[in-house]
Amino acid sequence: MAFGWIDEQAQARRRAGLVRILRPRPADSPLLDLASNDYLGLARHPEVTEGAARAARTWGGGATGSRLVTGTTELHAELEHELAAHCGFEAALVFSSGYAANLAAVTALAPHGSLVVSDAGNHASLIDGCRLARGTTQVVAHADPDAVRKALATHDGPAVAVCDTVFSVDGDAAPLAALAGACREYGAGLVVDDAHGLGVLGDGGRGAPHAAGLAGADDVVVTLTLSKSLGSQGGAVLGPARVIEHLVNAARTFIFDTGLAPAAVGAALAALTLLRREPERAARARAVAAELHARLTGLGLCAVRPDAAVVSVRAPSPEGAVRWAADCRTAGLSVGCFRPPSVPDGISRLRLTARADLSGDQIERAVRVIGETRP
Amino acid sequence: MAFGWIDEQAQARRRAGLVRILRPRPADSPLLDLASNDYLGLARHPEVTEGAARAARTWGGGATGSRLVTGTTELHAELEHELAAHCGFEAALVFSSGYAANLAAVTALAPHGSLVVSDAGNHASLIDGCRLARGTTQVVAHADPDAVRKALATHDGPAVAVCDTVFSVDGDAAPLAALAGACREYGAGLVVDDAHGLGVLGDGGRGAPHAAGLAGADDVVVTLTLSKSLGSQGGAVLGPARVIEHLVNAARTFIFDTGLAPAAVGAALAALTLLRREPERAARARAVAAELHARLTGLGLCAVRPDAAVVSVRAPSPEGAVRWAADCRTAGLSVGCFRPPSVPDGISRLRLTARADLSGDQIERAVRVIGETRP
Repeated sequence: MAFGWIDEQAQARRRAGLVRILRPRPADSPLLDLASNDYLGLARHPEVTEGAARAARTWGGGATGSRLVTGTTELHAELEHELAAHCGFEAALVFSSGYAANLAAVTALAPHGSLVVSDAGNHASLIDGCRLARGTTQVVAHADPDAVRKALATHDGPAVAVCDTVFSVDGDAAPLAALAGACREYGAGLVVDDAHGLGVLGDGGRGAPHAAGLAGADDVVVTLTLSKSLGSQGGAVLGPARVIEHLVNAARTFIFDTGLAPAAVGAALAALTLLRREPERAARARAVAAELHARLTGLGLCAVRPDAAVVSVRAPSPEGAVRWAADCRTAGLSVGCFRPPSVPDGISRLRLTARADLSGDQIERAVRVIGETRP
Repeated sequence: MAFGWIDEQAQARRRAGLVRILRPRPADSPLLDLASNDYLGLARHPEVTEGAARAARTWGGGATGSRLVTGTTELHAELEHELAAHCGFEAALVFSSGYAANLAAVTALAPHGSLVVSDAGNHASLIDGCRLARGTTQVVAHADPDAVRKALATHDGPAVAVCDTVFSVDGDAAPLAALAGACREYGAGLVVDDAHGLGVLGDGGRGAPHAAGLAGADDVVVTLTLSKSLGSQGGAVLGPARVIEHLVNAARTFIFDTGLAPAAVGAALAALTLLRREPERAARARAVAAELHARLTGLGLCAVRPDAAVVSVRAPSPEGAVRWAADCRTAGLSVGCFRPPSVPDGISRLRLTARADLSGDQIERAVRVIGETRP
C-alpha cells in the first residue's frame, strides 16, 4: 500500500519516545515564555502589530505574485533599503522566510566547480542549501578557522565558507573575524546566517557581522530572519549590490516563490524603526542572558556562557530533559528542549531565550522554576 | 577576488538581454492586473485584509518560533482544519510558503531507496524537492500516465509520482485520475501541487484533486499555496492523517522554519470563509479565462485552451514577447512574460491570469490592448 512504510517509522518513533506533537497555543497564554525567538519582545508590540495591520490594509493580504512579476511593492523596497542601512551593507533582498534566504544564498553562490566549506553545527537550512548547490561541500569542525583554511587550501576555483553567526542550540558565537581572515587568505567568500545575531549583537543590534568589523565588506554575505528579533516573518540576504543582483537573477527560492506578504513587511519595518529608536533593547537582551546564566550556574547547573540571547542548560539524559521541560511547563514556564537526534553531539539540554522585555520578577521566577524542577 | 565570477555571469546575461529587474509597485497602481496569481481577486478584499489585521493584533506580528516550539497558535490549527474540510482531506499542515510545503512533501515521502517519478513540466519547488530527497528521481514526459506507469514498473519499493495539477506556464491541467490509476497499479503514492487549482477548479473551488474524485484518498497527498486564490502567503500539505503526522516528525522545512505569521493565517482563513460563502467565484474565474481565450483566438492569436485560470498566448520570438509585454504595460495592462531559459520548451509567451473579479469592460480593454500591441 502507498505510504505503508510510514507506519513502521511511526512505530519506531513511538518506541523510542521521540514523537513530536503540535501544541496550539491560545492568544493569552498564561505561560512565561522563555522558548520563543522573540528576543526583543517585539512580536506583540503595538507598533509592530499596527505596522502589520496597516500594511495589510494598504497593500493587501498577500504580495499576489513572485517578486519579479507583481510581488514587489514599494514597501518591500523600503524594507530592503532600511535593512541594508541598519546592518551596514550595500544592498538587501527580502525572502518569504529565512530558510528560503539561506537556500538562495548558498545555492546561488556555490556554482558548479566551486567549494562550500560548511560548519558542522550549521542550521538545517544552510545544510539543505549545501545539498542543493551545484558545488561540492566539505563539512569542517565547528567554529574552527584553521579547519576552514585547510579545506580552502585543497581547492582551486570559487569557494565560500558558510556558517551561523550564533548557533541556535548552544547559543555560542562563531569566530567571525578569524573566519573572514581565513577566507581572505584564499580569496573565498564568507556567507553567515545572522538569524540569532540581528537585534542582539553589535552596536544597537546591527548584528554579529557589524560587531566583527565585517559590515559592508565586498567578500561577506549575510542572511537574516525577520521572524526573531523583528517579531515578524521572512528572511533577507545582505551584501554587495552585485551579489544581490546575482540572487535576483539566479536564486530559485527568490524567482519561483511568492513575495513576502505586505503585513510581514510592515511588521518588520515597524520593528526595525523601533530598534533604531531604542537601540538599548539589544544590550538588554544580552544582559538578561548573562543574568540567567549567572543565576543558573549559581544553582550548580551546567550552562554554556551565552554569546547572544540563547542560554543552553545541560540535562542529565534525554528522558531527564523531556521531563524537566514538562515540569517547567506545569509550573507555568515555557522552555525549549533539545535532545538526540536533534543535537548531533548527543547532549540533551534546555534552551532558554533571554527576551529583552523580561522583568526582574520574571527572571527570578524562571530561575526558581528551573532550579526547583531540575531532574 | 571573492565573488569575482559573478561579474562574468552578469555580463553574459546583459549580452543575452536576460537581465531580470525588480519593479516596485505603488499601492494604487493604475495598471490593469492580468499578471498576478490573485485568481479570485481576494488579496485586497476588505474581509481578507481585515482578517490579516485582526490576526496581527490578536496574535502578534510573527509566530515567534518554529511550529513545534511556540509557532503553532490556535489560529494555525483552525486554518488547518478548515483547509482539510474544504478540500475533502483528513488532515492538513500549514507552511510558511508553498515552496516549503513542496520541499517538505517530496523529501519526507521519498526516503532512501524509494523512487520519485517527476513530470518534466513540474514547478521549481517540486524539482528542488526531488533534488533534496534521499530517493532516486526519474523525470518523465509531461502529463503522460503511461510514462509514469513505465517508470514505476522499473522499481521495487516505496514510490511516488509528483506533479502540478495545473502547470503554471501554459495553464494546462494534469490528467489526475489517470495518473492516480497508474500509481495504484503499482502501489505508489501520488503527490500533486494544486497551487493553481485551489479556488478555481472543482465544485466551489475545492481544487483539482476534488474535481478528479481523489479527495480523501489514502494514497494521494496535495500541496497548496495560500498566496494565490486565497490572497495571502504560505503553503499547506493535505492528506491522510498518518502522512501529516509523518511530516510533523520528519519534514525539515516544517521542523526548522518559523511558523507562518498570524496575519497570513488570518487572511487565508478569511479568504477561505469568503470562498465557501461565495462558491461561484471559482466558476467565474474559469469563465473569464474561457472568454479571454475565445476572444484572443478570435483575433487570430495562438493561445492554449485554458484548463483553469491561466491563459498562455504564444509570442513569435523571445524579443517579441518582451516587447509585447512592455507595450501592454505602456498601454496600462500588466501581463506575465515567459521566455527561454525559463521555459524548457523554448516557446516564448505572454501569461495572462483570469481574475474572477475582472469586469466585462476590463476584459474588453485587456483583449484590445493585447491585440493592438501584438508584434
